[in-house]
Order: sequence, then structure tokens, then C-alpha cells
Amino acid sequence: MKRILILGAGLSSKFLINYLLEHAESSKWHIRLGDISLDLAKDKINNHPRGEALFFNVDNPEQLMAEIREANLVVSMLPAKFHFKVAKECVRFGVNMVTASYVSDEIKSLDKEAREKGVLLMNEVGVDPGIDHMSAMQVINRLKDEGSKLIAFESSTGGLVAPNYDNNPWRYKFTWAPRNVVLAGAAGARFLHNSKFKYIPYHKLFSRYEIIDIPEYGQFEVYPNRDSLKYQSTYGLEELSTMFRGTIRRPSFCDAWNLLVQLGATDDTYSMDDTEHMTYRQFTNSFVAYNIVDSVEKKIAAYLGIAENSALMDKLKWLGLFDETVIGIPDLTPARVLQHILEKKWAMEPGDKDMIIMEHQFDYLRFRQHRKIYSTLVVIGEDSTKTAMAKTVGLPAAIVSRLILENKIDLTGVQIPVEKQVYEPVLHELKEYGIEFKERDVLIS
Amino acid sequence: MKRILILGAGLSSKFLINYLLEHAESSKWHIRLGDISLDLAKDKINNHPRGEALFFNVDNPEQLMAEIREANLVVSMLPAKFHFKVAKECVRFGVNMVTASYVSDEIKSLDKEAREKGVLLMNEVGVDPGIDHMSAMQVINRLKDEGSKLIAFESSTGGLVAPNYDNNPWRYKFTWAPRNVVLAGAAGARFLHNSKFKYIPYHKLFSRYEIIDIPEYGQFEVYPNRDSLKYQSTYGLEELSTMFRGTIRRPSFCDAWNLLVQLGATDDTYSMDDTEHMTYRQFTNSFVAYNIVDSVEKKIAAYLGIAENSALMDKLKWLGLFDETVIGIPDLTPARVLQHILEKKWAMEPGDKDMIIMEHQFDYLRFRQHRKIYSTLVVIGEDSTKTAMAKTVGLPAAIVSRLILENKIDLTGVQIPVEKQVYEPVLHELKEYGIEFKERDVLIS
Repeated sequence: MKRILILGAGLSSKFLINYLLEHAESSKWHIRLGDISLDLAKDKINNHPRGEALFFNVDNPEQLMAEIREANLVVSMLPAKFHFKVAKECVRFGVNMVTASYVSDEIKSLDKEAREKGVLLMNEVGVDPGIDHMSAMQVINRLKDEGSKLIAFESSTGGLVAPNYDNNPWRYKFTWAPRNVVLAGAAGARFLHNSKFKYIPYHKLFSRYEIIDIPEYGQFEVYPNRDSLKYQSTYGLEELSTMFRGTIRRPSFCDAWNLLVQLGATDDTYSMDDTEHMTYRQFTNSFVAYNIVDSVEKKIAAYLGIAENSALMDKLKWLGLFDETVIGIPDLTPARVLQHILEKKWAMEPGDKDMIIMEHQFDYLRFRQHRKIYSTLVVIGEDSTKTAMAKTVGLPAAIVSRLILENKIDLTGVQIPVEKQVYEPVLHELKEYGIEFKERDVLIS
Repeated sequence: MKRILILGAGLSSKFLINYLLEHAESSKWHIRLGDISLDLAKDKINNHPRGEALFFNVDNPEQLMAEIREANLVVSMLPAKFHFKVAKECVRFGVNMVTASYVSDEIKSLDKEAREKGVLLMNEVGVDPGIDHMSAMQVINRLKDEGSKLIAFESSTGGLVAPNYDNNPWRYKFTWAPRNVVLAGAAGARFLHNSKFKYIPYHKLFSRYEIIDIPEYGQFEVYPNRDSLKYQSTYGLEELSTMFRGTIRRPSFCDAWNLLVQLGATDDTYSMDDTEHMTYRQFTNSFVAYNIVDSVEKKIAAYLGIAENSALMDKLKWLGLFDETVIGIPDLTPARVLQHILEKKWAMEPGDKDMIIMEHQFDYLRFRQHRKIYSTLVVIGEDSTKTAMAKTVGLPAAIVSRLILENKIDLTGVQIPVEKQVYEPVLHELKEYGIEFKERDVLIS
């Protein structure tokens, strides 16, 4: 009997836990689910005979050690900052580990010791990162195997509200951490276009979007991610001359968001004066020059170079930026004020469904033809707990966990899912859950 | 006989040293001038019978202690980061100290102990900070004494190249640290306008300038400083509803500099790829989208929304931003690359003179009249070593040093020159050196 320790029983663990519980009987697994909220863990285990809920505090070193020592596999769905603590104990006790989070420098530092001990620390097996790596590598390796030459790779992902539920002027709601959405792009972007490195500062980022077309779902905007070249060597694409990664939004989102960036409303570097008594309108007014004659609306429109009666201006008005509502919280940065305002307006409502969209574009040469593969994934959430986000994050982590427990993965050290032995079985099985890429292969010239 | 220890014999110490040497005989002072370059110190002392040059290394704690212990006054003209080391020893040995630099948090932390020991640490007695404090406080206190009510205070300073020597399209040359000029404004700006706090993000800063008129010198642009409210309480202006501090440039400078900010060429947060082999043209091209048809010039003009044949574009071309010159230095940030390019073009040439411009505007109410005082200072450098910068930094520090040695200043602890007993004699004596404000007092309504 193998013992799985799952840490973290939050929303994004739902599909992961269910998958592992469903396979527990036939595979003879025992699953311990630890969370700082015992009730949450009990709720997720739902009296399953192979499962057990426990109160778990990652800051209690004795408990951490005791639990990991007894486990055959640890899946950490804790906030990313806790992974290192868990990983260190996993390496010490020779226990394999799975996370859906980015490899941090701390985690990377465990690589040598993990290899020496034969321990696998498998990270980035969620959706982005996760499914993006696996689906991209599948096509990249297929093109290589058939003798085609990849010349450009562009990859974009977005977490959005599903069609029919995108019923506000922004066609956007928070389906994940609001703070990350407000600060997105603050460090600018870097990518490679026809062998030229391109750099975009933050204040230009949301005006440098591109338009993509997703069959059946229409047009979307894509703005560049911070570092498109992060995985260039990991993917084995050192020779590639165009590489771009982006984030997907609904049309006209970027132009509107850019207005907030231009104002300085997304700045997180300083605290404003007396946000406790400041109104939303005063917040907005603080970014434009003093002028006793014109309304705040008029000043904002003139400053941003948009018409006072325009769809863009309507988006700002709809957020409540010109309302006399009091913020009521002291010492906030502009970004925190904006988040506070947005959280009320962009909240998912009961019954709303979310959506994950991913698109890869592969330009390649074969038999003197320039061709292009569009590979697209759309996953719609089932309801407000069985979200597309939870499904696409949790299922890859769950399947990889099963493969590791069945000794089907022959890797050690700090890894991400770019090897065939990982992505082939995972992508194959994900289809059973409706997570399946559609491909179009078109002749360019 | 009193002993003065001057630390740092660089360009900005010239007037300071000469002033103190000139007063040494009659005042019976002995002056020790320490510098890491003994030759430089000897050159400045120029065999004066009351002066002595020495090799001085601030990183040698024994020497630091020995020199300070023997002194009656220490004047530190070292780079600002060294002041704390010096100040700590001054407090320990009960020696007064003068600097022309901003009060750092470290220096501030010495206030209590300095007061207990009766030691005066007088800072910010240069030009900006320094003359700005003194000249502003003189008018502020005069208005208060005569029963006028100050309603707005705006203060701006610029270090520029003098008229007739501003012979390039930017009408600007480096008269002080190039790196500070390239990074100026990066943290945005904050000020108070009619009781409204105003915030400007970096990418809007250089489009939010105002125009001022300096009699005999014409128009200038003023862009807002980082924090206009820093001295609000120090100046005793807590009730003031408009307070603004700015930096002065020649007309059309800000619009042109803004282009470089918009491109991202002043970004200092990341290193670019292979700047060693990158040309200036490639540097410029890295900020605009890939496009095989258009020239870099055409792309830049379109991206920045300016005409390809425009005065603004000519300024960029004149800098060499479209040249095929190789940068030749590895691992530079965009800001470092830009500085490298600018240092060649904006260098002061032999024979060039510099200029310091300062303007205060005081709006005040008196007998139901709204009036306004414009108080302006213009200092032109004598030559390339007797610069306006060295003069306006060094003389206030020198005069304050004399006042302290003559026991004419009744202060202890960490101070800046905002008290009448300091600014009155200093401003009075500065007139003898041609450093004199001109006032216009006009009726507004």
C-alpha cells in the first residue's frame, strides 16, 4: 500500500483530490490530506474509505517531518512560498514530490542533492505552467521527428470568464488572484522576433497587444509576458529566431487597462496620502492636474486622449472610478486601491463559469513550404467550484502523481514536464476529461 | 588656533577651500585637506601657509579617528555614502560637522546623541539642497512677520549649460553626475495643488512640465520632483495647500526626453542581451516591433507619434541613436547604454560655462490682495573649474563653517539651514560673490 500526502485542500485541489481518491481503491493507495482548516480537508475527503483528513500546519517542523517521512509521494498545493520547506524534507527522506508552481531558485538549489538521493521533484504540472509545456513540447518534438524546421513559436494563455458570463463592459472577471492581475506586466516584457531581442516597458505593454482568432470563440487580445525566452533552452529551441509568450484577454480589454496604467493607478511602489478618507473620485482625480473648471471626467478624458463619450471612458465609469464611495482603508498603494475597487466589480457571481484558453502557434518549414500549426485549447468550468482553472491545474498534477507512484517516470532531480515519458501519457489521459487541443495546419507560403 | 578638517578635494570643494584659506590668517585657522589623491589636495592647498594637504582614506578607521579627534570642525565633501562614517566619529569626539548633502536616515539617527553631546551636524548647505532652503525660508518668514498669508509655494532649480554654450539641439550638457540625470524622475512625482494630492507616474512626468519665465534669460521648462512635500513641515508650512518642487530645463527638452522614457531607454531594472556587440541603432530598434519593411527611423517616429522630419526626431538623430556605432560594453541596462551614448554628446567642452538657475514663486494674501513674489537666482560659471555648481555648493558650506567656528550658530543635533541665524548671514555674504536673488512682487487679483 502506497501513501500519498496532499498538502492544501483549497479550491485548486478539488480535481486533484477527487482523481487520486477515485484511483485509490484499485491502486491500493492511502491518501492523507492536510490543511490548516481541518473542516476543509474533511469536506474534500468526504468520508472516502481510502482517505484521511488532518489538521496540518506547514510551520510545525515536527509534523512536517513526521508526515513526509511516512509518505511515498507528496503533492504540495500550498501557496508557492511554502514549497521549499516541503521539498527540503522530501529530499531528506527520499520522498518524491509534485507541485503545480514555478521552479524557484530555492527549489532549483535542491537539484544536485535530489539527484544523488534518487528523488524526483516534479514542478510546473498545472495549466500555465504545466499544460503549456506539455502541449508545446508534443508538437515541437513531433515536428523535429518528421524533419520539419521550427522557425517561430508563440504561446498564449488566459484565465477568463466563460462566454455568456462575460456580462460587463470589460468582459473580464477575477478567476484567480486579483493582486496578480492588477500588477501583471509591471516588469515589462522581453521577447525574440526574427533574431531581434525586443523590450517593452510597462507603460507601453498594453498598447503592444496582438489579435488572435480562436475557432468558435472569436477574437482575443494577447499582451506580451515578462520573459518569453525563459524556456528557450529548456525546450531545446536555442536556434529559434522568434519566441513569444503572452496573456489572453477579451477584445478592447488591453486599451482600457492601458488607461489605468497610464494614469499611474497600478503603481505599487508608494502609499498614497489618507486613502482611508479618500473617495474613488478623489483617487482618480489625484492622477490629473488641478483644474477648478473641468469635471474629473473631462480632465481624465483629455489627459488620456479619449473622448468623454466613448466606450473606453464607459469602462472607467462602470468601475466606479468617478463615484463618491469612500475607500475606507488606510495606507494603500494605488494598486491596492484599484484592486479594492475592482474586487467589487469583477467578482465572479454565483452561477458564473470560468474559462481557460491556450493557443500555440508554430511556424515551420517542410519540403520548402512555410506552414503554420495553430494548436488551441478551450476549457469551460462546470460551476463555481468545479472551475476550468481548478480542473486544468489539478488534473495534470494528479495524473503525474499516479505515473510517479506506478514507477512510470524515470527521472530524478528538479524537473518540469517537458519529457515525452511525462507529457504523452498526461496529455492522452487529459482528453478523457475534455482537456484536448485542436490543431489547424495551414500553408503560409 | 582652530583646526578645520576638510575631507574631499574634488571639483565641488574648490570655492569652499579657497574661502576658508582666505579667512585662515585673520581667523587663526589651520586647515587640513584630506583626499585619496594627495596631489589633488596639494594642488588645492597651493602651498598656503595655513593649509596642509594629506593622503586620507575614509576606509581607514584609525586615520579617521585620529584626524577627527584633533579637529574643531569637519567639512565632508566626500560622496554622500561616506558621511555617516565621518558623522559617527564627529559625534563621538564632540566635533561639529558640515555637509552639502541630503540628511540620510542614518545621519538622522545620530540626532539624539549629537544633541546630548552638544554637537552640531549641519547638512544640506549646498545649492539644492542648501540655497533653496535658505532663500525660501527668508521670504516665508518675512511674509509671516508682515502678516501675509502664504497660499502657494513653488520652487525649481536647474543645473544647465550657460547661454551661448548651449549649442546643441537639446540645449543641455552634463554639468553634474550623468547617471543621476538619466535616472531622474524614475520614482514618479508627488505634490500638493489646492489641497489635492497629485501623483504622476514616471512615464507621464516629462509631459507634465510647466513653463516659467526668468527675466533676461527667457523661458524654461519645469518638471516635477519626486516629493514636493518633503520639507512641508520643516518649513512650517503644514497649512499650505499648494506646494511644488521642480527641475528646470531648456524649452523642448522635456518633450524630447519623454521620447526616451516612452521607448524604455531609461530603464535601469534589467540587463539587455549582448550589449557588447550591439550597435546604437540595434539598441534603439530593440524597443519597437519587428518590421522588415520600414527603417528604424520610420518605426520609431510612428511608435512615438512624431513626424519623421521633426525637431524632436532631429534631437534623437543628433544623439546618434540611429548610428551603427558599437556599444562595446557587456551587460548594460538600457539606462547605462543611454548614459554611455549621452556622455559623448552632452560632455562639457573646454571653455564651456555652466549655469545654476533657481526660482521660487510665493502666492500670498495681504490686505485682501492676492499677490505673488517671483524670486530668481542665476549664477553663471567663470570657467570649466570655477563652475556655478562648485561656487553655489561650496560657498554656503564655507560660510556656515565660518559661522560655526565663530560660535555664531546656536544649534545642536542634525540640522538643515532653515533658521534665521543661519540663512540671514549666509545669504547676505553670498551677495558679495554674485549669488543674489532678484525679486518681483506682482498683484494677481
